[in-house]
Parts: sequence; C-alpha cells; structure tokens
Amino acid sequence: MAVARLTSRDIRSESRLVVMRALLAAGDSTRNELADATGLSLATVSTIVQDLLKYGIVAETGLLAGTVGRPSTGLRVNADRGRVVGVYVEDRYLEATVFDAALGELATIEAVSDEPVQEADDVIDWIVRGLDAALERAQAKRDDVLGVGILLPGGMQRPVKAEPVASAIWLHLDRLRDRLDLPVVIDNPLKAIATAELWLGAGRRFANVVAVSLGFGVGAGIVQDGAVVRGATNSAGEWGHSLLAFEGRRCQCGRRGCVEAYLGVRGVRQTLAETDPGHPLTEGPDTFGFLEALVDAAEAGDAAAIATVERTAEFLGAALADLVAVLNPEVIAVTGWASAPVFHERMMPIIRRRVLADSPGDAAADLAFEFPTRCGMDGIAAIALERYMRDLGLVTTRVIPAL
Amino acid sequence: MAVARLTSRDIRSESRLVVMRALLAAGDSTRNELADATGLSLATVSTIVQDLLKYGIVAETGLLAGTVGRPSTGLRVNADRGRVVGVYVEDRYLEATVFDAALGELATIEAVSDEPVQEADDVIDWIVRGLDAALERAQAKRDDVLGVGILLPGGMQRPVKAEPVASAIWLHLDRLRDRLDLPVVIDNPLKAIATAELWLGAGRRFANVVAVSLGFGVGAGIVQDGAVVRGATNSAGEWGHSLLAFEGRRCQCGRRGCVEAYLGVRGVRQTLAETDPGHPLTEGPDTFGFLEALVDAAEAGDAAAIATVERTAEFLGAALADLVAVLNPEVIAVTGWASAPVFHERMMPIIRRRVLADSPGDAAADLAFEFPTRCGMDGIAAIALERYMRDLGLVTTRVIPAL
Repeated sequence: MAVARLTSRDIRSESRLVVMRALLAAGDSTRNELADATGLSLATVSTIVQDLLKYGIVAETGLLAGTVGRPSTGLRVNADRGRVVGVYVEDRYLEATVFDAALGELATIEAVSDEPVQEADDVIDWIVRGLDAALERAQAKRDDVLGVGILLPGGMQRPVKAEPVASAIWLHLDRLRDRLDLPVVIDNPLKAIATAELWLGAGRRFANVVAVSLGFGVGAGIVQDGAVVRGATNSAGEWGHSLLAFEGRRCQCGRRGCVEAYLGVRGVRQTLAETDPGHPLTEGPDTFGFLEALVDAAEAGDAAAIATVERTAEFLGAALADLVAVLNPEVIAVTGWASAPVFHERMMPIIRRRVLADSPGDAAADLAFEFPTRCGMDGIAAIALERYMRDLGLVTTRVIPAL
Repeated sequence: MAVARLTSRDIRSESRLVVMRALLAAGDSTRNELADATGLSLATVSTIVQDLLKYGIVAETGLLAGTVGRPSTGLRVNADRGRVVGVYVEDRYLEATVFDAALGELATIEAVSDEPVQEADDVIDWIVRGLDAALERAQAKRDDVLGVGILLPGGMQRPVKAEPVASAIWLHLDRLRDRLDLPVVIDNPLKAIATAELWLGAGRRFANVVAVSLGFGVGAGIVQDGAVVRGATNSAGEWGHSLLAFEGRRCQCGRRGCVEAYLGVRGVRQTLAETDPGHPLTEGPDTFGFLEALVDAAEAGDAAAIATVERTAEFLGAALADLVAVLNPEVIAVTGWASAPVFHERMMPIIRRRVLADSPGDAAADLAFEFPTRCGMDGIAAIALERYMRDLGLVTTRVIPAL
C-alpha cells in the first residue's frame, strides 16, 4: 500500500463525498445549506454541486423562496439517475435488494437452497438469477443499473485459511462481471456495515463509530475520524478473531479463544453445553432459531438458559470493552442477534455494566449504544454508488485495487 | 465530540502538515520536490511554503542550480526558529530533552528520586527544574522555547480509576503553565510514540502503523490512513488493557486478564513464578534489571528462564495478532523491552510465527516489524511543535481541547 498522500485531487474527492452524504442526509437542500452543514465554503460547494449536476448524480428541484434575499435553487440526490443492486450470498442463502440512486430501497428478493451452492459457476448463476429477479420486482432493467455490490462473508482479498466456500467466487470475479456486463464491487459485511453507518447512520453524527455484527460469524466495522478503516489489505475489523481467552475454545478459523467462539451462534450453544451438558437445546442446527428458543427458555425460567444468556452478556461486554480500549469510539452500533429486542432487554444492563467496568479509565463513560436495523445491504449499495462516482472520476477513494 | 467535517481550513491545515513532514524528511528540498513528494500542486505547495516562511517555520537556503531550467530556491525547516522541550515524568524518574525546531535533539538530562514525587506542587517543581537543567545543557533560554510537551503515563483526560500518581498534575496544568509562562501540552506516551512514527518513522512510509510500547505498562499508538488515532476522549490505543485471557490474571488497572498483566515487566515475572515458584528471580523490584537478569539466565541455560521468555513470546505474538485482526496494519513498530537485541533474537522467531498463525486469513502475510530506537520523547516534541503551529493559526488539528 502506498503512503497516504493528500493530493489536491483527493481533497476534491473527499469534499464531494462529504457534500453527497450531507445532501443524502438532508433530502432537500440548497448550496447555502450544504455549505453550513459541511463547513465548506459556498464557492467550494457550488463547484462540487456543478460537478455532481453535470453527471446527473444531483438534480435541481426548482427555485425555493427564501425568507431573506433572492430565492435559491433546491437540490436533491437524483434518485432516478439509475439503480444500484446489493446481493448478499452465503452457500445456502441469497438476498438481493434494488436501491434507487439516493439509496432508497425499492425491492428485495430472498432465495434459499437446500443444498450448499459451492461451485463458482453455480454461485455466479445464483447471483445472476437473484439480481434479475430483484430487478424484475423493482420494475427495473439491467440497463438502469449503475453498479452491483456483492456482500460475501469472510476475508475477501485472497483465498484464506478457513475460507467460507462461497468466497471462492472472489477468484472468478471477472466471469461474474462478464456475465452481468455491469460494474461489480465485492466487499465483506464488516466494511459494508461501517459504510452504511457512515453514509446513513451514526457515522453522520459521530466521527468515531464501531458497528459490531453478531451472527453465525462475528466482526466489526470501524469508522475513525469520519472514514471507514480498511487497513493494509482490507481486512481490518476482524474483532471476531481477536482473543477473548488465550488457549480458550477452538474457533472455526483455526485459532483458539477467538471472540467468535464465544459470541457466534455456535459459541452461544457451546456456553449452554458447558452450563448444562444434557440440555435439550444443545442439539440442533446453529441457526437464529436456536437463539430464539434459548431466550424463550430463559423467559420461562430455565436456569441453564438464563445462565447462558447472562454469561454471553458478560462475554460480549468484555469483548466490547476491548474495542473501547483500542479504539475509544463515541458509539457502538450493535447489529445481529444481540440487537433483537428480547436479547436487548435481558442482556443490555449486564453489557453496559461490564463495558463500563472493563474499559480503561473513563473511556466508556460517554459511550452510546445504538441498535440500527440496517445491515450491510445498504452499505454495499453505498460502496457500489461510491464506485460508480469513482468510475466517473468524481471520487478517488483509495480502495484495494483488486476489489 | 463534534462530527468530523472537512472544512477548507482543515484541508489547508492538513496540507501544511503534509508539507512540513515532507520537508523534515527531506532535510533540504525545493518547492518542486515538495510538490513531487506530497502529490500537491506546485501552486498549493508555494502558498503553503509562503505561510511557513512568513512565520519563520521554514527558511530559504539560497538558489540551487538545477540540471534543467532556472535555478530553484532551497528550503529547509528552520531549526533555529526556537527550541522545543519534551519532559517525561513518572513518580521516581524524570527525563527532559531539548530539541531544535526541526526536531533535532540538542541535550537531555535525567533525574531520579529515591522517594516517589507525588504531590502536584512537588511534581511541578520537579518538571520546572528538569526543564531548566535541560535548557542550560542545551545553552538555551526559556525565551527560546516555542513549546513544552509533557509525557505522562496513564489516561490523561480526567482522573481515572487506577490512576498513576503523577497524572494528578493533569488537574494542575494551569499552575504549571503559570510557573513556566510557556505553552504546555500534555499527552500520554502512546499518542507520542504514534506521532513520532508519523513525523519521523514508519508513518512517513506507510499509512497504517501500530507502535507498541512494552515497559512497566503496555500500550499501542495507532496511525491509520496517515493520522494518529485518538478516539472520542483521547484514550485510543489502550491495547495493554484489552483481553489476553477472560477472567485471567488480575491487572493493576483492576480488570482481569489484560495484555499488560502478561507483558508488562510485572507480568513477565509472574510468568516466571508460575513456571518455577521458587526461582530466585521471582524476588526483587519490577525493573528492566529483572528482564536483563532473566535473559542472562536464559542464555546460561536456565530452563525456567527459557520457558518464561518463550511463553512471553507466545503471549506477545498472540496479543499482536489481535491488533492485526482489528487494525490490519502494514507495520508494527516494537518499542520497549522486546526491542532490546537480546530479547529480539530469542523471541522474534516465535512472535513472527505466532502472529502469522493467529492473524485472520493472510492479514499478516506482508506485515513488517520495526524496532525503532525513538521513544515518545521526540513524539511529544512533534506534538508541541504542532501545537505551536496551531497557536500561529497554521494548523487546525482536532485535538481534545483539554490538552
């Protein structure tokens, strides 16, 4: 990775993204309001808006009568500029969502496969069919699509040690691009969730945000000083594979003691098994259904289920305190199973106490928690939109070239 | 903390720092070379140089005959603009170093106290005497001083739970300023080490750097995308108080299982005591002298000492892999006891193997290690210099106002 240098071109690019996000946040705005909102000069905002108008990214909405002085021209992100499609793909599950160019959701389709979809050709077929089905539901055509974002769990740069099977399509990205004849960008859910927070969530109000994702896998998307942290090879945020316990439980990644081995769905089940080896819920698939059943059992007074939920909250609080220690964020946005209201109610008091107690000094004293319903899908759409702006020459964001 | 907004003023400020660092790196340079080195336009560089010349931060060194075209004017950071003083203070140890305005080291003094210096007035006295002694050795006067940087271990924002005694002077910063009648900036060693890497070390060649500091305490200074990560309340980088082992050893901070409880000097001794409870080196003060004796014993074939050194290397490798998981740096700069050649030789093969094995995917495949001899002292001098540029209106760096 090259040394970060702040070129004039990068500065223009960053300013364009700042204006774009401010306009998305405002819905309707004016050049003057955007200058106020961003702190950029009116002259800079006007130049940027001119560039965005030129490419149809932004549209004028007519003259607005102001309370003082001349009427000003209304501005809005041009939703009709085109469509952006996000596709989330695991080996048995696929979801595709069509967004307008202002990142408004238009239509979603889901697909489930009884058999794992593993061969690259089959995965590509599945993505193409899912994308077309979503476009049909959104009454859109492929010609309308400005960009496609593919969300793949797991490390995306090169084949990794404990690689989720679907990630193999990373190696066949060119074939996917050829099949679709559309610009395609691939990223992992951590970066997408962080990008969603930056474009549409807490990252618009705070400079330092960590979004944690708790599911079968566990990870974090990091926003520092208003930018998504990617690291040297786009693999920053793998909090799920940092240590909870040296030489602790074996993780599916091969390491021992990872956060994910305690806080992924399978890890929660293992905590139950350690609490009560004969408990009926220790058997069955490692799905969110297990977690629902666990909470139901806890609500019904099942002692082992209660102990497991509480122990899991202690693990989560301790693991979040590690993120506070290293990154000292203003907000932690919790997504995934722990954000479900039923977990939230039972676990959050324990989690808050533990984070406060375990964080260095008073680093967590003013820490806020949020429970956004957004997932990585709108984030990958934002990344695809950013990529489109890059193709137009409007943005020079440094991303790993291979993506 | 306010939302990060990229104002035109911030952009000028960032560009000035970029030019300043490039000029420090080059020693002697020209406007054209600086434009090449930074990627900024020649016009922008010329404007910035004009600002820096106006305040005497940069000096012209006369006309240089170029190989092609007109001769160009040489430029250099104006070392004689004034002096910057760094002071490191613990409760029994003080060190003060005088730098010129190009961050060249001129003179250092050390002071040791048999009794802990704990009362705020005594600490302030000690700092003032140390600063004056260092200035005298550097043949400089207080009037020459552009800024003073105080390095204090521990959380600096507000009184913290397990507060090192000397940190209390944080609460009396105004009195220190009154006594010295000089601009004073206080920061912790982690931020100073990161700033030193950014201004003078790996951070000039890489965008993503983590500098770890291993001493009595343990911490990390983080550079991401060419900027020091401070977090919401300036307490980012407290890697020493992230988990190595849930419910593990009691740390002096009150938490259990912190990295510092295994990798601070006291933690290494505890590993020895767990390996061989009756070992003679388990007794004595927790100083670097213990570590030297430990390595000597290992070199002499002492099985418990060898096992302790090797176990410590496993702990350190695992804890560094956590930083790779979350931050995915290009370089880890190791400072403190592990950078001493004797540890380095015995431990680095184990550390490298462990970091590679424990890091997610191939996130550590291209990771480099460095062992800079610089410590936080030149970093706090750089922070003091940055502060001086801020007082002149040249820099708008967002730092926590209380500092």
